[in-house]
Amino acid sequence: MFTLHSIDGGICAPQGFFADGISAGLKPDNQKDLAFIYSDQLAHIRAIFTSNRFQAAPIQHFKKHAVEQTNFVLINAKNANAMTGERGIEDIEEILNHAHQTFQNIQNPVMSSTGVIGVPLPKEKIMQGVTNFDLTKRDGTAASHAIMTTDSYNKEIAFEVVLDNGDSFRIGAMAKGAGMINPTMATMLCFITTDAAIPADEMESMLQSTAQTTFNAISVDGDTSTNDTVMLLSNHKSGVYDRKAFAHALERVMHELALKIVADGEGATKCVAFKITGAASDEEAEIAAKALTNSLLVKTALYGEDPNWGRIASTIGASGITCDPKTLTITFGNVTVYNRGEILFDQEQEAKAAKVMQKEAFSIHCDLGIGEGSFTAYGCDLGYEYVKINADYRT
Amino acid sequence: MFTLHSIDGGICAPQGFFADGISAGLKPDNQKDLAFIYSDQLAHIRAIFTSNRFQAAPIQHFKKHAVEQTNFVLINAKNANAMTGERGIEDIEEILNHAHQTFQNIQNPVMSSTGVIGVPLPKEKIMQGVTNFDLTKRDGTAASHAIMTTDSYNKEIAFEVVLDNGDSFRIGAMAKGAGMINPTMATMLCFITTDAAIPADEMESMLQSTAQTTFNAISVDGDTSTNDTVMLLSNHKSGVYDRKAFAHALERVMHELALKIVADGEGATKCVAFKITGAASDEEAEIAAKALTNSLLVKTALYGEDPNWGRIASTIGASGITCDPKTLTITFGNVTVYNRGEILFDQEQEAKAAKVMQKEAFSIHCDLGIGEGSFTAYGCDLGYEYVKINADYRT
Repeated sequence: MFTLHSIDGGICAPQGFFADGISAGLKPDNQKDLAFIYSDQLAHIRAIFTSNRFQAAPIQHFKKHAVEQTNFVLINAKNANAMTGERGIEDIEEILNHAHQTFQNIQNPVMSSTGVIGVPLPKEKIMQGVTNFDLTKRDGTAASHAIMTTDSYNKEIAFEVVLDNGDSFRIGAMAKGAGMINPTMATMLCFITTDAAIPADEMESMLQSTAQTTFNAISVDGDTSTNDTVMLLSNHKSGVYDRKAFAHALERVMHELALKIVADGEGATKCVAFKITGAASDEEAEIAAKALTNSLLVKTALYGEDPNWGRIASTIGASGITCDPKTLTITFGNVTVYNRGEILFDQEQEAKAAKVMQKEAFSIHCDLGIGEGSFTAYGCDLGYEYVKINADYRT
Repeated sequence: MFTLHSIDGGICAPQGFFADGISAGLKPDNQKDLAFIYSDQLAHIRAIFTSNRFQAAPIQHFKKHAVEQTNFVLINAKNANAMTGERGIEDIEEILNHAHQTFQNIQNPVMSSTGVIGVPLPKEKIMQGVTNFDLTKRDGTAASHAIMTTDSYNKEIAFEVVLDNGDSFRIGAMAKGAGMINPTMATMLCFITTDAAIPADEMESMLQSTAQTTFNAISVDGDTSTNDTVMLLSNHKSGVYDRKAFAHALERVMHELALKIVADGEGATKCVAFKITGAASDEEAEIAAKALTNSLLVKTALYGEDPNWGRIASTIGASGITCDPKTLTITFGNVTVYNRGEILFDQEQEAKAAKVMQKEAFSIHCDLGIGEGSFTAYGCDLGYEYVKINADYRT
């Protein structure tokens, strides 16, 4: 067995990792907008990327070089370097060459970007910023601020994992994202560091399977950006590894950051877990759960704190999965409003359900009563603020 | 050949059709809420329905009785009679039995409903309303008002179609819908009447294929209601039929009503045609076009009159179809902002594109440069009003 302890330090909590965030003049008012992650020992790196066909230049660059080990990740906000063609990749090469000349001990550097689509990188500013980096800094919090776009708060987390024999390793992470996903502000980014000695060949599959129930289970607006990236760096400095403990810690890290992203959804006032059980399969449960997180009518009902169970039922029915009104049960928090064909929605039940919806976080559980499939997706409400943020963004 | 003449009368324009809309006390303030369509000669009827698995009771009733000919359609607003189980169907039987007793000359009556989901029909009020009907009335406009829910205006249309030999027939229609589709206000309904002698076996396939490029090509909020219905009634009273002319007239009727529904989208200020060409197939073009109409980020950019072409590109890339930034071209109105890998988005172009977006109706054309597939979908913007209407609806 093992125990998890929440610790400070974010991505710098694991041994051998350094980071900082500085202002390179990409954001106004000297806000931090450029970050690095540095490991004093070469780290294995694996990443999973957006399914968008128009993957941004940093992703193309990463794949082109088939990077497997690195000690330096450069991240900028304000510009996604997406839809920028060959030039976008050449700009990255030039910036990273410059970084290499500045800090001769960096190897196979990679880059990640977030911001507006379709505008060439402000390359000179970024190179000037790189020159100002101090690789001995261990300020994960500054880095987590630098990668923010419409985020209203920074997102970082770290754990120490202690095994029963007293051995321990650490895992830290930072993320940005306040729309899942918001193509112009592209995007959701997450960087995870660890000193655990995880075998390189286990990293990608573990990232993939954990993403399925965490970052791939959240939705703010149903859009998928060109830049979505989750990177895991492991430098093995602790010398310790326990598969089960590491998988658990990774799941905790990604789950908590995923919920932070939903809770920070643009204009969101509520974080809602849509739990589907009794589906014909896990896949069908996932389709229904995600349909609920993406339905405008459900999202506006959440905002209005209106226990409008008809919209829930209709969205499930429209999702195309196997379902039957005679076996469906819908429960807000612990208040069942529709039970296998029977409408339990009198004034008293409605008032109780409305009370559940006044909370900042609650669950809506739909049991389809058909099979054993289940999935939980996390979503938020849609209010005036979302429209304001997204209608006014570029102006 | 043939010519189309726009005429008054809506669903009562064709010979032998009668209609009216009255107040049965379902809506407040004596607003019209109950309508009938009556034909003095038995009419063939065919209908296409929502793909939602939870089809409302009126649809189940129609299918149960496999109605092929009728002379009476009853329509109520304010209550969708959906998720109401066996009781919902029994209520329809009772109401239609009452109608039959009241007007002995009606045969195989059918019913259609729109409004809130999950509440039993106010059956007594509806039966009392039916008693008050006057089947000699020819007030299509009153009927089109009675079926409105969140619609801000009634929607009706009629044409006289004159063939080259001087023969003529008429077609009329009314529709409701201001969300495509809005499950609690369920829904989009359309009723088409004609005195053309269309063979019964051609009715359904013609409805289906025409719906594909009209009602199935529009989106207000991407939701699919439990009640969506398009009904075509033909009583053959003109004795005239020309397949090509009828198909053309039907397409005009359904296309114009579809655009009226989009333009009346809840809170919408713009109607936008998303035209996709050069796709690998018509199916892929349709997927991309509909992804654009449903993207929250695109819809809010439309509202903000922001020619944010990066959101357009990203949404196409995320839709899963075959596409390549090197062959993609994006044009707002007649202003090309991205041409096969080249960004043409300087300040001058941006100002021109923004000017296009200030119009109430315009097109956004994306040529994928890959194949011959094409599709045009129609959507609207999403602004504060949509949130207001949908967050506050039931309260």
